[in-house]
Amino acid sequence: MNPVFADLPTTVFERMSALARAHGAINLGQGFPDDPGPADIREVGAKALIAGNNQYPPMMGLPELRTAIAAHYARHQGLDLDAGSEVMVTSGATEALAGALMALIEPGDEVVLFAPMYDAYLPLVRRAGGVPRIVPLRPPAFRLEEAALAAAFSPRTRVVLLNNPLNPSATLFGADDLALLAAFCRRFDAVAVCDEVWEHVVFDGARHVPLMALPGMRGRTVKIGSAGKIFSLTGWKVGFVMADAGLMRVLAKAHQFLTFTTPPNLQAAVAYGLAKDEAYFAGMRAGYARARDRLAEGLDRLGYRVLPAQATWFLNIDIAEFGGDDVAFCEALVVRHGVAAIPVSAFYPDAAMRHLVRLCFAKADATIDAALERLADAR
Amino acid sequence: MNPVFADLPTTVFERMSALARAHGAINLGQGFPDDPGPADIREVGAKALIAGNNQYPPMMGLPELRTAIAAHYARHQGLDLDAGSEVMVTSGATEALAGALMALIEPGDEVVLFAPMYDAYLPLVRRAGGVPRIVPLRPPAFRLEEAALAAAFSPRTRVVLLNNPLNPSATLFGADDLALLAAFCRRFDAVAVCDEVWEHVVFDGARHVPLMALPGMRGRTVKIGSAGKIFSLTGWKVGFVMADAGLMRVLAKAHQFLTFTTPPNLQAAVAYGLAKDEAYFAGMRAGYARARDRLAEGLDRLGYRVLPAQATWFLNIDIAEFGGDDVAFCEALVVRHGVAAIPVSAFYPDAAMRHLVRLCFAKADATIDAALERLADAR
Ligand SMILES: CSCCC(=O)C(=O)O
Ligand SMILES: CSCCC(=O)C(=O)O
Repeated sequence: MNPVFADLPTTVFERMSALARAHGAINLGQGFPDDPGPADIREVGAKALIAGNNQYPPMMGLPELRTAIAAHYARHQGLDLDAGSEVMVTSGATEALAGALMALIEPGDEVVLFAPMYDAYLPLVRRAGGVPRIVPLRPPAFRLEEAALAAAFSPRTRVVLLNNPLNPSATLFGADDLALLAAFCRRFDAVAVCDEVWEHVVFDGARHVPLMALPGMRGRTVKIGSAGKIFSLTGWKVGFVMADAGLMRVLAKAHQFLTFTTPPNLQAAVAYGLAKDEAYFAGMRAGYARARDRLAEGLDRLGYRVLPAQATWFLNIDIAEFGGDDVAFCEALVVRHGVAAIPVSAFYPDAAMRHLVRLCFAKADATIDAALERLADAR
Repeated sequence: MNPVFADLPTTVFERMSALARAHGAINLGQGFPDDPGPADIREVGAKALIAGNNQYPPMMGLPELRTAIAAHYARHQGLDLDAGSEVMVTSGATEALAGALMALIEPGDEVVLFAPMYDAYLPLVRRAGGVPRIVPLRPPAFRLEEAALAAAFSPRTRVVLLNNPLNPSATLFGADDLALLAAFCRRFDAVAVCDEVWEHVVFDGARHVPLMALPGMRGRTVKIGSAGKIFSLTGWKVGFVMADAGLMRVLAKAHQFLTFTTPPNLQAAVAYGLAKDEAYFAGMRAGYARARDRLAEGLDRLGYRVLPAQATWFLNIDIAEFGGDDVAFCEALVVRHGVAAIPVSAFYPDAAMRHLVRLCFAKADATIDAALERLADAR
């Protein structure tokens, strides 16, 4: 058995969701909305199952979806992508990420990563043969810092993997962070793999800037997006990859061998959804911002120390006052008080951070209020 | 860029399908039926999109689907699988295969493969760090032979990858072949990864026997199945992995990092489909057998040399009489005569075999008849 995979525990998201089910807990752990997702988009997907093509679509994705992706990112982020050679559809952002790492890394290449990080990143980098160089981001701001980047980049750096906005810290990296990172990518001739699945879920009037849009980055960035996150349909597993044609030729090979293609009816529905106007996306953001505020204000009233959340479906509380063992805190919370949450140490390779707990607010008001009642008991 | 992926041409299936579109050809290349697939199964999938859950299902698959898979293989192949620990749902058989190789191979492990082989096998083995040992199978019988296996297996053999029934040769390996292979697996303590996606598409009263059912193989076999092939819905990308719980724990990690999960509405529809009775599967087989006979008899009448097809949606013709360059033959066929086919050399790492051409017969009678008219002109 390959030791990179053999030695890993089950993902914290599954473990907490299973505990939530076992204990009848309100699940604010794994990131998914309790809203069923846009009815019209699901309707288009259902119609395509009945009347559309159910055989292999083209490996790179339905032409109508590739065109819709290019148009969507032109409109929302000013990107100029050729639908025929610079856009690919994958079976979720996870496949896109796995494929990019498999395609770009040669054994021994160094890969710069930031902690906290999504739990798939490090095993994927290792399994691809990469040598991880981890840059810790300091709470509560979690910004990129020049000295830390300088310590991690080297002439052997081949790839840097950035999640922006950043799950779990709910950080939106801004112009300064991105300019700094772009300078390092250019200086060390590195490719940036940008997991931007949370790009549309940003709050308080802020705007996500794709790293690909920075000077010198167009030809050295692999941008990854997710229809599941954009449309609150996390089960759909429709992801996007954008990169210049030269990179894309190799990324396409990885996709060919990892899943080959993605269900055409869901692709058709996502193509329909991506054409929605700005009002739709503004409404989606406003809804999640209201939910964030409801949970944050409730926690604050209860005396919890809430960290700011600029983006994503998550906010964090600092549980240092409870002893600073996030795993113990989360286990007691789900078992004794009936609320599932995620210990943020799961996002650190060495569990270096132990005093943050992540809560998902992509829930109905009633769910948030019920969770708050239970969280009151946990104090 | 990783050289395993960077140096590969585009898949022959896409290339031929694109040529077919460009030249208005009848596409007997890439393997997909022109039937839309069972209406009732698509209906269940559509209903689940509207009324069901569209958020992350459990990582290992919907419990109802895992139970349906275990029950299905108990009924059809006498396998005794624990739905809770020995069955996993993947985003297609390709993901299942990629994951199994990533999970099982350590760099330097030897992997035994058989030629002809599906074009994903060798790059996946190489990218996983495996050292391929290729066993050529001799036409027209394509059977396993003791001397060839003895030359390929060694104490460094970790995995053997078998496709049974075998695409493109349409061979169904029988009791003798399997017993021989099982003996080598036991002797060299190798794990068999069995791509059995064509298991239900076998003709002339023959029965597919899963390698997993052979003595000593239960704990050392990873069995891979495909709802797309079982139900003629190739775009759905719902695959199954079956293995004992010890192997499954590691296979599950690969799945976690490659796609994490698979659309729940399609899973629900496949669970419904797998409960169909023997009459359904017998009818499906009879339909494809009739199509095979129609194409084979038509080709025979035209003077083509048709090889026997015991399984799959494919039959092969021997084009040695036309000069023995399958690629040139297929290019002329699609461009000049309007029929797309697959040159079988694409299934050989070194293009060692040049005189076979694969045709897909999973088509309506009218499609087959029109193709035959064009194939008449090509003689
Ligand atoms: C794929 S399960 C994890 C979902 C998620 O993005 C999160 O909870 O962080
Ligand atoms: C994934 S495209 C190839 C489909 C197939 O199984 C074949 O044509 O052999």
